[in-house]
Amino acid sequence: MRCQLIAIGAEILSGIIVNSNSSHISARLCQSGFEPYAHTVVPDNQEAMKRGILRAFEEVDLVITTGGLGPTLDDITRKVAAELFSSDMVYSKEIAQDLIKRYGANLSSLRDQATIPRKAEILRNTIGTAPGFVFEENGKVLALLPGPPLEMKTMLEDELMPYLTQRFPHVKPVSSAKLYFINLTENQLDPLLRELQEECADIEIGIYSSYGTVTVLLKGRDEKKIAYAKQKLASSFETFLFEAPSGKIEEALIDELRKMKGTVAVAESCTGGLIAHKITLLPGSSDVFLGSLVVYSNELKQKILGVTPKVIQEHGAVSRQVVEQMVEGLFAKTDAQYAVAISGIAGPSGGSTEKPVGTVWLALAERGGPCHCCQMNWQGRSREVIITLSSSRALGGLYRFIKYGESLV
Amino acid sequence: MRCQLIAIGAEILSGIIVNSNSSHISARLCQSGFEPYAHTVVPDNQEAMKRGILRAFEEVDLVITTGGLGPTLDDITRKVAAELFSSDMVYSKEIAQDLIKRYGANLSSLRDQATIPRKAEILRNTIGTAPGFVFEENGKVLALLPGPPLEMKTMLEDELMPYLTQRFPHVKPVSSAKLYFINLTENQLDPLLRELQEECADIEIGIYSSYGTVTVLLKGRDEKKIAYAKQKLASSFETFLFEAPSGKIEEALIDELRKMKGTVAVAESCTGGLIAHKITLLPGSSDVFLGSLVVYSNELKQKILGVTPKVIQEHGAVSRQVVEQMVEGLFAKTDAQYAVAISGIAGPSGGSTEKPVGTVWLALAERGGPCHCCQMNWQGRSREVIITLSSSRALGGLYRFIKYGESLV
Repeated sequence: MRCQLIAIGAEILSGIIVNSNSSHISARLCQSGFEPYAHTVVPDNQEAMKRGILRAFEEVDLVITTGGLGPTLDDITRKVAAELFSSDMVYSKEIAQDLIKRYGANLSSLRDQATIPRKAEILRNTIGTAPGFVFEENGKVLALLPGPPLEMKTMLEDELMPYLTQRFPHVKPVSSAKLYFINLTENQLDPLLRELQEECADIEIGIYSSYGTVTVLLKGRDEKKIAYAKQKLASSFETFLFEAPSGKIEEALIDELRKMKGTVAVAESCTGGLIAHKITLLPGSSDVFLGSLVVYSNELKQKILGVTPKVIQEHGAVSRQVVEQMVEGLFAKTDAQYAVAISGIAGPSGGSTEKPVGTVWLALAERGGPCHCCQMNWQGRSREVIITLSSSRALGGLYRFIKYGESLV
Repeated sequence: MRCQLIAIGAEILSGIIVNSNSSHISARLCQSGFEPYAHTVVPDNQEAMKRGILRAFEEVDLVITTGGLGPTLDDITRKVAAELFSSDMVYSKEIAQDLIKRYGANLSSLRDQATIPRKAEILRNTIGTAPGFVFEENGKVLALLPGPPLEMKTMLEDELMPYLTQRFPHVKPVSSAKLYFINLTENQLDPLLRELQEECADIEIGIYSSYGTVTVLLKGRDEKKIAYAKQKLASSFETFLFEAPSGKIEEALIDELRKMKGTVAVAESCTGGLIAHKITLLPGSSDVFLGSLVVYSNELKQKILGVTPKVIQEHGAVSRQVVEQMVEGLFAKTDAQYAVAISGIAGPSGGSTEKPVGTVWLALAERGGPCHCCQMNWQGRSREVIITLSSSRALGGLYRFIKYGESLV
């Protein structure tokens, strides 16, 4: 069943905050089989809100708004919705009592927040002061959720989703499958996806690429076809596949290391700490991650990791020889089972004809084993993209090495 | 001048990614005096896209879309726009040549990406493969930007904004001033902001807080009043103020270090490389940043920085004594003029009654000078927030130390 989300607020339109509410609600609705068909953001302005809601109802029967339910001047969503559904406002003793219980009788917004549209059902707010509402008339359902994300999320989960699944019992979760690939491009996947789309016309195939990771989403009513497409994709690109609830390669890597009780240490030059940052954002990464030596200057490469001045002089800091020495240095200075080293030219300056901006060397090894190296060429990319792609390739390279025995070269 | 933004992509509607593009574009447009009047998100579906664009043009004369310009199956924005503006498609040798120069002749999407609507002006993509376009007919302007944020941002700044300011010369930025504060809270600024708002009722005062940085935005038609308010804020909180085009404290820090030809080395435990990452994202940071030793494990704290097992045993890895030894270790192992060390409990596990999750120790010093330490308490925050706030406090602490001689304690 199709639905639309409308976020209300000038702060989104002026770019001060990102509309993360609609994302969250969309993901939750999809999970239960609803189909978010459009998102809209409108200003805190009566006319614009009314028009936005009426237009949405031309296309769908379920509209969910966020924002504008508080007690201040520009919070007018309740009023606009009440007018659209020809409802007068009444003072709710029940809501007032709940607010007094939680905030005391001196709450300045008490009268305002307890004054509600007579025709609406109430969605309880257990986190903040503004209740939510559901209006229904002639098969059109309008739900109002508060804007603060924590209040919205709690009300969505505890109040609105139960209401919707009861109100629309025919809506059932669709089958879906998600596959994550690392160190693979959209272009490499595209021919097979086109084939699959022809073969299974009734399943929906989406592909999303984000700096090194490619996500394929399969959706539809036919579970068998989804399983078939999933299997076909997985077997064709098996050694590029990873599994992680977050969709992040670092999560898959940490899980894999944890399973085998392995540890890793990293030496970063051009990625400047991003590999370490990605890993340490994940809780429990300290089980397997010893640390990263961000040896940005040549001086630190020498003093901390024992890279020799001769090798830097002969081959340059961005070379196979230097990343190999960095890996050796990691094994000498730590007890890590796996070591990864990276050095490159992120730009915008520092490039040469021989080694243009975007040239990056990566090395990885297991203690006691051979060192695997590869050169990446991210020419034409910006500094941030080069850093991000390189870190993703390093994380993916280590994962594929550990999981599938794929060396880089 | 009013305008509308339309983001295209099923991945936003299914909640897989957040629509941060519209935020960014909105903020940039506001800066130049344009008024984003609505955001919409529509699926990669021809009919929905057409209807979305036509509806937007009922209300505004300028519509900007993001997404759907790539070479894959579901990238149909070019096609839809060409149909709306009755344009046929032509092969552009110019674009093909540029792509070959940057990616080589074997680029599989070459033919697709070089096939463009005849009637459109081209917005060059210097980061990725998909060019952007501007269509115009009967006073209606439609601009198409790519979806990947870095490509979009670069094209917006380098190509679309110059086009728009030339095409709509009557749109003028309103006067505004932006002040950035570090290591200061909204609550500390609030009383003065209320005073100023009463005194200067006709200027608009906005305050936005983002993980350690507070931005105050002053806007209005009266330049003198804006200058007055700016001066009052700056003088009241002088030692918290920083200047940086990007609004990032690390940029101000690097500029300051560069001016005085200083260098810095960092030792990170709980921030896990984020301090290094923030610094190294900025071009030219290698002038002043030697590196960061991300000593996540106690083993590395000892082996790399010479923290003594006795001190860890007696005081714990999160303690004044340990961060002091980390600073000493940095001065011993590097030639840095300034050293910063941080160690804390980011959670969700690892806390105790004495040292709950959110306890973080920070130390900094100039070579030969005393070591300044402080404890932070980010209790109740999530892991990511603790890491972000701590890194921001460290960067801000060093900046205030260097610029204003403010020690942490």
